[in-house]
Amino acid sequence: LRTGIPEVIYGEAKSAEQIVTIARAMLDKKGPLLVTRVDSHKAMLIVEQLPQLTYHHQARLLTGPRTASGPPDVRGTILVICAGTSDIAIAEEARLTAEHLGNPVQAIYDAGVAGLHRLLAHQEKLRDASAIIVVAGMEGALPSVVGGLVSCPVIGVPTSVGYGTGAGGFAALLGMLNSCAPGLAVVNIDNGFGAGCLAAAINRNR
Amino acid sequence: LRTGIPEVIYGEAKSAEQIVTIARAMLDKKGPLLVTRVDSHKAMLIVEQLPQLTYHHQARLLTGPRTASGPPDVRGTILVICAGTSDIAIAEEARLTAEHLGNPVQAIYDAGVAGLHRLLAHQEKLRDASAIIVVAGMEGALPSVVGGLVSCPVIGVPTSVGYGTGAGGFAALLGMLNSCAPGLAVVNIDNGFGAGCLAAAINRNR
Amino acid sequence: LRTGIPEVIYGEAKSAEQIVTIARAMLDKKGPLLVTRVDSHKAMLIVEQLPQLTYHHQARLLTGPRTASGPPDVRGTILVICAGTSDIAIAEEARLTAEHLGNPVQAIYDAGVAGLHRLLAHQEKLRDASAIIVVAGMEGALPSVVGGLVSCPVIGVPTSVGYGTGAGGFAALLGMLNSCAPGLAVVNIDNGFGAGCLAAAINRNR
Amino acid sequence: LRTGIPEVIYGEAKSAEQIVTIARAMLDKKGPLLVTRVDSHKAMLIVEQLPQLTYHHQARLLTGPRTASGPPDVRGTILVICAGTSDIAIAEEARLTAEHLGNPVQAIYDAGVAGLHRLLAHQEKLRDASAIIVVAGMEGALPSVVGGLVSCPVIGVPTSVGYGTGAGGFAALLGMLNSCAPGLAVVNIDNGFGAGCLAAAINRNR
Amino acid sequence: LRTGIPEVIYGEAKSAEQIVTIARAMLDKKGPLLVTRVDSHKAMLIVEQLPQLTYHHQARLLTGPRTASGPPDVRGTILVICAGTSDIAIAEEARLTAEHLGNPVQAIYDAGVAGLHRLLAHQEKLRDASAIIVVAGMEGALPSVVGGLVSCPVIGVPTSVGYGTGAGGFAALLGMLNSCAPGLAVVNIDNGFGAGCLAAAINRNR
Amino acid sequence: LRTGIPEVIYGEAKSAEQIVTIARAMLDKKGPLLVTRVDSHKAMLIVEQLPQLTYHHQARLLTGPRTASGPPDVRGTILVICAGTSDIAIAEEARLTAEHLGNPVQAIYDAGVAGLHRLLAHQEKLRDASAIIVVAGMEGALPSVVGGLVSCPVIGVPTSVGYGTGAGGFAALLGMLNSCAPGLAVVNIDNGFGAGCLAAAINRNR
Amino acid sequence: LRTGIPEVIYGEAKSAEQIVTIARAMLDKKGPLLVTRVDSHKAMLIVEQLPQLTYHHQARLLTGPRTASGPPDVRGTILVICAGTSDIAIAEEARLTAEHLGNPVQAIYDAGVAGLHRLLAHQEKLRDASAIIVVAGMEGALPSVVGGLVSCPVIGVPTSVGYGTGAGGFAALLGMLNSCAPGLAVVNIDNGFGAGCLAAAINRNR
Amino acid sequence: LRTGIPEVIYGEAKSAEQIVTIARAMLDKKGPLLVTRVDSHKAMLIVEQLPQLTYHHQARLLTGPRTASGPPDVRGTILVICAGTSDIAIAEEARLTAEHLGNPVQAIYDAGVAGLHRLLAHQEKLRDASAIIVVAGMEGALPSVVGGLVSCPVIGVPTSVGYGTGAGGFAALLGMLNSCAPGLAVVNIDNGFGAGCLAAAINRNR
Ligand SMILES: Nc1ncnc2c1ncn2[C@@H]1O[C@H](COP(=O)(O)O)[C@@H](O)[C@H]1O
Ligand SMILES: Nc1ncnc2c1ncn2[C@@H]1O[C@H](COP(=O)(O)O)[C@@H](O)[C@H]1O
Ligand SMILES: Nc1ncnc2c1ncn2[C@@H]1O[C@H](COP(=O)(O)O)[C@@H](O)[C@H]1O
Ligand SMILES: Nc1ncnc2c1ncn2[C@@H]1O[C@H](COP(=O)(O)O)[C@@H](O)[C@H]1O
Ligand SMILES: [Mg+2]
Ligand SMILES: [Mg+2]
Ligand SMILES: [Mg+2]
Ligand SMILES: [Mg+2]
Ligand SMILES: [Mg+2]
Ligand SMILES: [Mg+2]
Ligand SMILES: [Mg+2]
Ligand SMILES: [Mg+2]
Repeated sequence: LRTGIPEVIYGEAKSAEQIVTIARAMLDKKGPLLVTRVDSHKAMLIVEQLPQLTYHHQARLLTGPRTASGPPDVRGTILVICAGTSDIAIAEEARLTAEHLGNPVQAIYDAGVAGLHRLLAHQEKLRDASAIIVVAGMEGALPSVVGGLVSCPVIGVPTSVGYGTGAGGFAALLGMLNSCAPGLAVVNIDNGFGAGCLAAAINRNR
Repeated sequence: LRTGIPEVIYGEAKSAEQIVTIARAMLDKKGPLLVTRVDSHKAMLIVEQLPQLTYHHQARLLTGPRTASGPPDVRGTILVICAGTSDIAIAEEARLTAEHLGNPVQAIYDAGVAGLHRLLAHQEKLRDASAIIVVAGMEGALPSVVGGLVSCPVIGVPTSVGYGTGAGGFAALLGMLNSCAPGLAVVNIDNGFGAGCLAAAINRNR
Repeated sequence: LRTGIPEVIYGEAKSAEQIVTIARAMLDKKGPLLVTRVDSHKAMLIVEQLPQLTYHHQARLLTGPRTASGPPDVRGTILVICAGTSDIAIAEEARLTAEHLGNPVQAIYDAGVAGLHRLLAHQEKLRDASAIIVVAGMEGALPSVVGGLVSCPVIGVPTSVGYGTGAGGFAALLGMLNSCAPGLAVVNIDNGFGAGCLAAAINRNR
Repeated sequence: LRTGIPEVIYGEAKSAEQIVTIARAMLDKKGPLLVTRVDSHKAMLIVEQLPQLTYHHQARLLTGPRTASGPPDVRGTILVICAGTSDIAIAEEARLTAEHLGNPVQAIYDAGVAGLHRLLAHQEKLRDASAIIVVAGMEGALPSVVGGLVSCPVIGVPTSVGYGTGAGGFAALLGMLNSCAPGLAVVNIDNGFGAGCLAAAINRNR
Repeated sequence: LRTGIPEVIYGEAKSAEQIVTIARAMLDKKGPLLVTRVDSHKAMLIVEQLPQLTYHHQARLLTGPRTASGPPDVRGTILVICAGTSDIAIAEEARLTAEHLGNPVQAIYDAGVAGLHRLLAHQEKLRDASAIIVVAGMEGALPSVVGGLVSCPVIGVPTSVGYGTGAGGFAALLGMLNSCAPGLAVVNIDNGFGAGCLAAAINRNR
Repeated sequence: LRTGIPEVIYGEAKSAEQIVTIARAMLDKKGPLLVTRVDSHKAMLIVEQLPQLTYHHQARLLTGPRTASGPPDVRGTILVICAGTSDIAIAEEARLTAEHLGNPVQAIYDAGVAGLHRLLAHQEKLRDASAIIVVAGMEGALPSVVGGLVSCPVIGVPTSVGYGTGAGGFAALLGMLNSCAPGLAVVNIDNGFGAGCLAAAINRNR
Repeated sequence: LRTGIPEVIYGEAKSAEQIVTIARAMLDKKGPLLVTRVDSHKAMLIVEQLPQLTYHHQARLLTGPRTASGPPDVRGTILVICAGTSDIAIAEEARLTAEHLGNPVQAIYDAGVAGLHRLLAHQEKLRDASAIIVVAGMEGALPSVVGGLVSCPVIGVPTSVGYGTGAGGFAALLGMLNSCAPGLAVVNIDNGFGAGCLAAAINRNR
Repeated sequence: LRTGIPEVIYGEAKSAEQIVTIARAMLDKKGPLLVTRVDSHKAMLIVEQLPQLTYHHQARLLTGPRTASGPPDVRGTILVICAGTSDIAIAEEARLTAEHLGNPVQAIYDAGVAGLHRLLAHQEKLRDASAIIVVAGMEGALPSVVGGLVSCPVIGVPTSVGYGTGAGGFAALLGMLNSCAPGLAVVNIDNGFGAGCLAAAINRNR
């Protein structure tokens, strides 16, 4: 486990049977287990055979039983923020990934409806976080706004929520890559899993 | 002059001689005159022959003498805002175009260095404007921010200032088209002229 | 309601339950209500629980009861034009949004079959409008044509109607951004809602 | 000469010496000669050695002496139209190519400043043409307009004149490919030569 | 019918009812009738109500009864060629459109399996055609090949048949726009209808 | 200095005079100073007037005198790696930015010629780093390779070094965004400055 | 069979009946037979009528009976490698195509889960291969890695496995085209068939 | 020299001094030497200091003295074909690279002017080649044509020669990736060096 990230199964293009086979091998080795991008039908078929797995519906994640290795040595709490109800799925993928990697995580998902003042109501959480993941679609401006308020590392996750020129998430991605908040970390569109891993790497005490 | 916009010469792909010929014909007809996208060398050659024209260096505009038709009936003042020193050229093109079309115009060009609080210092100007032009490069977020502060129409002008994925202004353009501030008007990248015309149309009393 | 736009719910990526919860909170606060991009199945589920909402099938909009605040002070009538039968859905989204924001709105939807002369038959409507929304797919030339006929602000809405290189609406969007009618306001592809908001902001007397 | 098009040298990426060598071989064979995309400096070097060639400055073409084969059997006159002064170079390339291939050609280059009514003043030319080439940059709408006025084949040539999203000519190209004027023929951006060849093929009596 | 093209209904984004209403009005005016891009289910609903229409399954076209106006004065025969079985649908749309506009049309659809020598077996048809439509997907090279064999105008129709970088037809479109066969006419991806109209305009004797 | 990043001047689109004016104001306030993307000619003009600034030629940076505030509380050493000689300029921009923000930085710039085994020779540096910046052009694979070797956060900086499909840096950017090394942080193409800021935020002890 | 590749039917856009007709003609000529991109439903309908064909489910291939012509003269063994379970379908298409063309083929499909060291366990296979096909999605780095280990030709097949900016396979394609492993052969996204043909051409003794 | 490719210096983004330093180290180790993409001015400065290097002007290559290792064991002759005079530079880069790696190479550069029949005049060369490199710009069809004539592996090199939609070489690249000649190997735009390496790997006897 040199890189700090347990083996993870990318579930999207695999059949339930393929996932069961690989997961079983990992469980036998008593390793931690994470399967990403599993739709609910596939999840049902898998959990029938591997009832020790838990399915997280919004995040489309399957997680294995917590392993005995004890909590890792972490620097603090990771904060996950998202703007709209539509981005919650990706935010949850990020939150559960970070948690699965042994980090305390907090979430602010109601920032979108009421805007900035709502966010400012969470001053303390913002100040205390050791890393903040900000999930946003459309023009993807929220990570820049957060980046202007805090000194800890901010990770932007563009989502594919949007239509017209925003469809697919490219507007959000470009917005984050060209942010005037210097030092924003960007991951692939809809990559909540990657954001969770990065936050965990930042939060790890070494 | 049914559409409210005087004849305008697009100067970029024309020689000095071509511009002189067209401009002279317009001056003969005593019409108002505007030539856009003229570099300083070309401008010098033109002004030598048509000394009644004025060259605006940053905006790369040539304007003719104010015509006798009297000030148009306008609703109020147009406000031009830009974020960075690098966007001033396009902001000036917008400002001078609107002014040339008979509108009172104000400008805030120092918003970029110090950010939002600097902008908020101009509360009154923001509240009093009948239309606001916001010029921005990079991720193009400033028009969204302004749109969240005012009720008058806001016109976003993406600029080609930027590098990497921001080069050419596409990130700024996409950011504005996908803005979560509803009702933002967008014009082509670097099109200060078009923004000035649109603001003038909005500000016109009919 | 500083910005003149009531809270609006983006319905596309939300479940019926999520929409009901948010809408109920807004209705409790007696605020005006608009939900965009709701398909008919989702709408049925919502209206069952919130019978005070009205569903507009073509526009895919849900609107709440008119609030008591009285008609806003407007400058005149907004005109919505579209070319083809296929663009009516987006045109209706624009029309109903502007109406919902308290504006008198007129519509010309039969311009496409017979072309320009049909449009010219509506001279009076064109001349009287305080803002015109033009919805067009394919090469998106109609807003340029209208812009050449009138002096009021013209808002172009590109639609995703088309195929081959026109699929997705990019040809229409680029056509409008590069229009030789100076001062055309452009919004995102299929963004009838944004066009309605912009027209309302222009039409508002302040 | 089975395909009706004489050998043509694409001059852009060749040195003056390379062009002289190839051209000399063709002249020896007494074939007709056309060299496209030759800048004025290169042209000077070539004409010094091959004084029987004529350089056309705006069109950036070199043409050889008219060959003895006599005028081809043509159906009528080809018409070349362009909108702005900036498109004249490509229009000239089309006009001279068609002429070089033995066709009578007429041109209307002043359509841009005054718009449609100016074009309508040329009713007779429009009606008499056996094929019309329309050269246009920016949003490229002119070929659609012409296509709505005539029954002969119309060939659209998008030009790279423009800036922002119009830079490079893609907006004009997409506009023409998605034109609502059915049956518009489109050629590559800035390809006046190709348009001239196509018009000649249409105009040829067989 | 000044432009030589009868009114055509673009069927894709219209409901069966909308099409019936528009078609009925045209039939009442005794005009020729063509509806493009109608899937078989929609066609069934329409033909039930308007039995005088004929549905062409592969071409996805509905045509009205031949009108009494008599055959137009044409120059010769139009030839439609396509490479693969997969391109036949678009080739049929082109063929039926040209035929509907009063032209004699021939077709070669078996060119793809055996390649060039198969095409060369049709020498006479190639030589006799007054215009040739070549439909091709993937890299879109067939129109260039045909253009090298004949002197009449050649119209290339790129199709969206393909996968990977070929998906959507852009590779074929770019191949045709950059063809080294000078004077190739190109229409939008999958636009068999447009190619039929263009061929008809070329073939028309005036 | 709430966000931990001192004011930075984006030098690219500013004149020497503009930069001198802004820089002088900052120096007066005794703040730390960094000017990015300054070419050597502009730098010369600036340093003539502000001799207390130092120009870093490869990185195209101007830095002000170290301020008295004392070293920040950092977690460890930042490591900057680049593959080819051609990427050194961006790597230097990252290195100097991080250093300017008070961090100890080490660099490995000879990894490219000899490949992986060369990198493995630096095992200790890799293991000891608290954050690693990896600068790479072409297909941008180096950050993925490094990410597979270490557990600390890795920041990928795509560069615009390359040609053909690699020109502009998009291949490298896409490679990093789709890396199979989970949790890679990505910044804009050629954005060494942003990478330096992000590494500093990660390395800061709070 | 001059080019060494038997006639192959591209099954994607053809109906079962069309495929049966073409396949029957080929079988009559006793030629080898390959049908690509056939989904399982279509395959069932075809095999019902042509039971001498074998369907390969993962590869979506139909193959005919081995013809009597005897094994071709080959240089050695072809090796097919893929990284993830999700790429196996395309890898199988490549493997079966090469085999069908008379080549001995070996496969390593378990390289993805455990990474490089797993690959290095197959040293002998790598060293003995006369050509290696490497199938990879996401950032497409595996072919570069293999290219750095061997001296035989390496063929990269990008797959459309991925999401966000990786969706469609463009990131993988660009990664391979810009590989720093000199001399990588690239084929179209998901083109396992083409890779099999190329490997066969390389492996053929002439 | 495990991979069969000697160390190569990518010269484009390096200064003359940097190249001299790296080249000197390699010459000291008596290794073979190749520097790519060196313009003539830089080459002059380098050869002044390292007179044992030879500069190839068209190919923009610097090659070191032939090393003593003796000719490698090759299968046959490599053939390099290009269509237009404008593609010769890239064809020469491919030819000299393959030669430098110890292969006998032949070239056909006059295929473009006179087309296919000219190519067919070289039947024997085509039949005898063990690998063929085909360099082509514009629509990039030549490699497909060659692939249909021969059974040996064909490598397509798209070039950036072209304008409009062909500028940059993308049309040629897409044409080759979607070729209907199965098994075409494609390399990056303008990558003559890579094509030479790939041909050498194919031609190597192992
Ligand atoms: N900077 C500009 N951007 C966009 N359109 C412009 C600009 N300057 C002038 N125009 C428009 O270009 C047309 C004049 O083109 P021309 O006849 O080529 O001078 C008029 O419709 C102007 O409104
Ligand atoms: N398949 C098609 N492709 C392009 N244009 C079409 C097509 N079918 C009809 N049209 C054109 O679309 C217009 C009719 O649009 P609509 O009024 O929406 O039916 C007419 O100008 C037709 O010439
Ligand atoms: N090279 C750079 N890349 C991205 N952002 C930068 C760069 N240099 C400065 N900035 C940011 O640009 C802003 C300053 O812009 P300006 O006021 O135009 O100098 C600050 O937010 C800086 O953090
Ligand atoms: N023209 C070229 N195109 C692609 N790769 C090249 C080229 N020239 C050299 N290379 C590769 O670039 C690497 C050397 O890069 P560098 O260390 O920057 O000189 C080696 O892997 C070469 O094989
Ligand atoms: Mg911050
Ligand atoms: Mg507002
Ligand atoms: Mg107007
Ligand atoms: Mg017409
Ligand atoms: Mg021809
Ligand atoms: Mg790691
Ligand atoms: Mg190798
Ligand atoms: Mg072959």
